Formats: sequence, structure tokens, C-alpha cells
Amino acid sequence: MTRKLAIGIDIGGTKVAGGLVDEDGGIAHRAWRETPHRSTSPAVVEDTIVECVEELMADADPADVVAVGIGAAGFVSEDGATVLFAPHLAWRNEPLRGRLAGRIPRPVTVDNDANAAAWAEHTFGAARGESHVVVITLGTGIGGALIIDGQVQRGRYGVAGEFGHMQVVPGGTRCECGNRGCWEQYASGNALVREARAMMGAGSPVVADLVDRVGGDVRALTGPVITAAARDGDLTARELIAEIGDWLGVGMANLAAAFDPALFVIGGGVSAADELLLGPAREAFRRQLPGRGYRPEARIVRARLGADAGLIGAAELARAGR
Amino acid sequence: MTRKLAIGIDIGGTKVAGGLVDEDGGIAHRAWRETPHRSTSPAVVEDTIVECVEELMADADPADVVAVGIGAAGFVSEDGATVLFAPHLAWRNEPLRGRLAGRIPRPVTVDNDANAAAWAEHTFGAARGESHVVVITLGTGIGGALIIDGQVQRGRYGVAGEFGHMQVVPGGTRCECGNRGCWEQYASGNALVREARAMMGAGSPVVADLVDRVGGDVRALTGPVITAAARDGDLTARELIAEIGDWLGVGMANLAAAFDPALFVIGGGVSAADELLLGPAREAFRRQLPGRGYRPEARIVRARLGADAGLIGAAELARAGR
Repeated sequence: MTRKLAIGIDIGGTKVAGGLVDEDGGIAHRAWRETPHRSTSPAVVEDTIVECVEELMADADPADVVAVGIGAAGFVSEDGATVLFAPHLAWRNEPLRGRLAGRIPRPVTVDNDANAAAWAEHTFGAARGESHVVVITLGTGIGGALIIDGQVQRGRYGVAGEFGHMQVVPGGTRCECGNRGCWEQYASGNALVREARAMMGAGSPVVADLVDRVGGDVRALTGPVITAAARDGDLTARELIAEIGDWLGVGMANLAAAFDPALFVIGGGVSAADELLLGPAREAFRRQLPGRGYRPEARIVRARLGADAGLIGAAELARAGR
Repeated sequence: MTRKLAIGIDIGGTKVAGGLVDEDGGIAHRAWRETPHRSTSPAVVEDTIVECVEELMADADPADVVAVGIGAAGFVSEDGATVLFAPHLAWRNEPLRGRLAGRIPRPVTVDNDANAAAWAEHTFGAARGESHVVVITLGTGIGGALIIDGQVQRGRYGVAGEFGHMQVVPGGTRCECGNRGCWEQYASGNALVREARAMMGAGSPVVADLVDRVGGDVRALTGPVITAAARDGDLTARELIAEIGDWLGVGMANLAAAFDPALFVIGGGVSAADELLLGPAREAFRRQLPGRGYRPEARIVRARLGADAGLIGAAELARAGR
């Protein structure tokens, strides 16, 4: 009997992660590359993807591989053919699916990376069986995806789910998108690190423990370092994470007002802080939810598939023909 | 041949408006009552609805009337059976559909009034033929509805579309919902009147024309008065409306980030200001839209059905069995 494997490729800001994914969401083999620099031509990125796919095909009986799915950090057109814009790559109106189709001997689908991660959580992870779900991936920024009636909603032109660029503070912190006060400037890994580094730069005594942990090197002060310190009981690190959680809760209350989901699933690197993040997020959500007390409230849980969600979901979307 | 008429009843904060609606969205007969005060018992509101329905049934051959639809300002449960909460009425977990079913000899459906208005615009008005639409009704507050793939989206529990209570200003103006900084505190008829009255109360010279128009009576300074002054060229009135438009645009950019609709339809009393409102709204929307320049942009148009949208949509939803 033929196994039905699909290849998933998750293209993030720093890493291209590929995997050969079975029908249960298990990863049989992996391949990875560094993401080509954003000044690099689209052709180089394309080569990188094809290399990963060929490496993974070589790990399986090629007859078992039925489809290849790409999840990319960027705007993907509604029909899945074109990457309209990718912040970390040189793609601008790039007809990626067509270009890859000529080089990969399997049906290729392309989707936004957050949509892919959400689909993985819905199929195999924390969102199984829920019809109305918002998935929030807290990495350097915020990746968002919306599931309604069990389907990923991509909007009219393919670019729905950009929750991280909803404005939460008029005139607030400048965002790479060009606006000010975007949610991801307050509830993301970047926000966490920015605040910690600002205190370190200002020589605040409350960050003494964090400074020790990185030997005084501000560039070494990363999200995982802050999370580890918080786990060990460092009060400043806990407060920094709680503040991210607070903004997470406020933004989720906004999304609940708009979508009324049954479930929020929180993934991405920052979610490693677990209850140190989700506790304050739930509190802020309850405080801020419009109509609280007169409506059923959405649950807020951590994602289950970790950093693999993107590639598993990309593979699964490809298997389903998106 | 039997005509298929449906009765629509729109229950707002001040008025219960009913209509006998034909298959083309035309209103053959009308009935209306004042909305019973919010301290009045649910039974009185129910009586008011039944009276309106009986009056309208008497205006038609009863055999032609196939269904009765109620649109109510409030949270309606996902199955359409229960009004969970209504800000202007005494309904709290009120099993409205069941209670009316015993008194009205036709199938009864209940939905949120903004959903009903949106459905009317989608079926007969400004949103015809568009699959992904956000409808915003600017009255005293903001009524919102979301159409995806041609269907009204009600969320998991029925209370999606409460865009007016998304927070746009942390710690901002107090809202009746209990929170601060809700969008409807900045982009609604109430916001418009509040700002104008504040200037009048402060004796600002720039509102001299508005003061004249109401003979110095601050309570007479209403949205329609401000709109009329703006139409006549009063600069302060224009600025007040433009400010509402600006906030409207900011909020729409947030919704576009989340949903990526093809179209925004702006209805409600404030939309009578037309381009004086929509011009600034479009400007703010374009300035604020995440990814502008790399994505197709949603159009922003005025609703077509005016104050009748709610009852027409309620009738049409009832005809379709919701």
C-alpha cells in the first residue's frame, strides 16, 4: 500500500524548514536552509525551496509523495498563485506557484505561513474539532489566522488575518509596516526584547539579573533568555512577559468582538512562556471582552505543534489541494 | 399566483419599525411603535411586536405572508432562538423566538439588527454581488456585520460583528459597555454630538453658527443639525464630521487587516453626511491600511437602503429561513 506523504516547506525570516509529513501529521524526514537575505533575487529563494524538496524526495519513495505545500511569511494572493509581498524576501508580485510548478514534479500549493500553522493546529493540534478559531503566532511579530466553519478564511484577496497590524495605540510605537501603534509592537517577541533592552540600555537596576545572564551583552538579551529568567522567578522578566500578555489579551478581546470565536490558540516562540504569558492574557481578555457576562467566552490555550506547525500545515494544505 | 411576502420588524433603541416586504425588497405596508422603555418587562416588548405583525397581516392576504423576521439591537444566540442581551431593552437570555412562535402563526426568525441591515444591502443594495463585505451602521453607536462567501457570519455563539466595541484608544472615552476607548466612542452619531455639545458648553466661538441653528439649546444640537450645517458650508461642522470620518477610516483599516473585504458599506444616520464623511474616511483608510501598495484595496461606499435596511433584511432572512 502506498503511503501518502506530502512535503511542507515553511519559509520564515531566518530559516527555510522543510519536512516530509505523513497523514497523521508526523514528520518522517526534515531538511532546512538559511533563508536567503532579503536583497537576494527571487530566483535564489526558489532554488533554495527546490533544493529542500529534492532532498526530501530523496528520503522517500518518490511515488509516495503526493504534493508539495509552501508556507511563506507574506501576502499570498487568494488563488494561491502569487506572493504579493514578503517583508523578509525580495518577492513582489512573484508568481511563485507557477515558477515552482515547472521545477517540482508534484502539485504545488502556496499559502501564508500563519494560515499553514493554523491549519496544522486545526487538523492535528490544539484547535481540533472547533469550528471558529483564531490562531495567533507570537514570533518576532504576530502571525494571525482565522478559521470559520472549519475553513481557513483568506479574505477576498488572500490577505486576511494580519491582526498584528491592527492599530491599538494611536500615534504609538513605529512599526516596520510604516504605521504607528500596531498590535505587534506591543504583543510580540520583538516588543518583549525591545523593552528589556531599553531598560538594560538605561542602566535600570531592576534588570541586574538579566544583565548577568548575558554577560552585559545587550545583543544577547533575547526572548528565550527573558523567558528562562522569568521561569527562574526573576520579577522583572515576569513583568515584561506579563505586559506582553496584557496586550495579547486586549487584542484578543478586540478580535472576539469582531469574530466571536470559541477558541484562541497561541503559538510561536513567545508562547514558550506558557502560563506566565497566558495567565495575564486571560485576565486582560476577561476585563476587556465587550458584553462579558452576557455571552459564552472563548477559551485561550497554547498551541501544541510548536515550531513545526508551519511546515506540517503547509504539507496538509497541499495534500488537501488547499 | 400567490405573492410571497415576509414581515420584517426592526427593533431599535427608540422605534419598532415593521414592514410587509415583497420578494424584490419593496415595502408594501408599514407599521411602527415607540420602543418600550428599557425598564419595561419583556412581555410588553413582545406585545408590541405581535401588534405590529397583526397590523401588517391585516394589510395583506394572510395567505401571502410566508414568514416573520425580527431584527433586534442586541446579542442574538447563534441558533437565533434567544436574545442574550439587549442594551436598550429588558431582554436577558430571553427565549424570544419560542415566545413569539406561540403567538404568530408563521415561522419566526430572530437576528441582530446590524446583520439584518447587512443582509438587505447584500441582497438588494450596495453590496450586491460582493462575496466579502463589512457593513458598518453608524447610528448612536456602531452596528457591524460581516459577510464572507456571501453569508452573514455570526461567530460561534452568534455575537460576531461587534466592531464598535473594539478598543482604538487605550484608556480613552468611557463607553456604555463598561470599557474605555471603544471605536464607537470616536466614530458614531453619539461621538459627533458629544464633541459639538462640548464645544457649545465651553462657549467656543467656532460653534456660533451651530448655536444659532438651535437657538442656544444644547439638547437640540443633534446629528442631523450638524450635518445640515456642514452641507451649508459651516467649517466647524465639517471638521466635526471629518473627525468622525477619520476614525471611521482608521477602524476600517483595522478591519481590512483582519478580514480583507472587497467592500465596506457605510449606513446609518451619520452616513447622510455622505462625502463629507466618506471622503475623510477613505483618506484615513488609505493612510492606515497595512500593506498598502502591495494589495488590492477595498472600496468604501454608502449604503443604499437607508433606515429601511433593518426591516427589509429581517424579512429577507425570515423568507430564507435564516
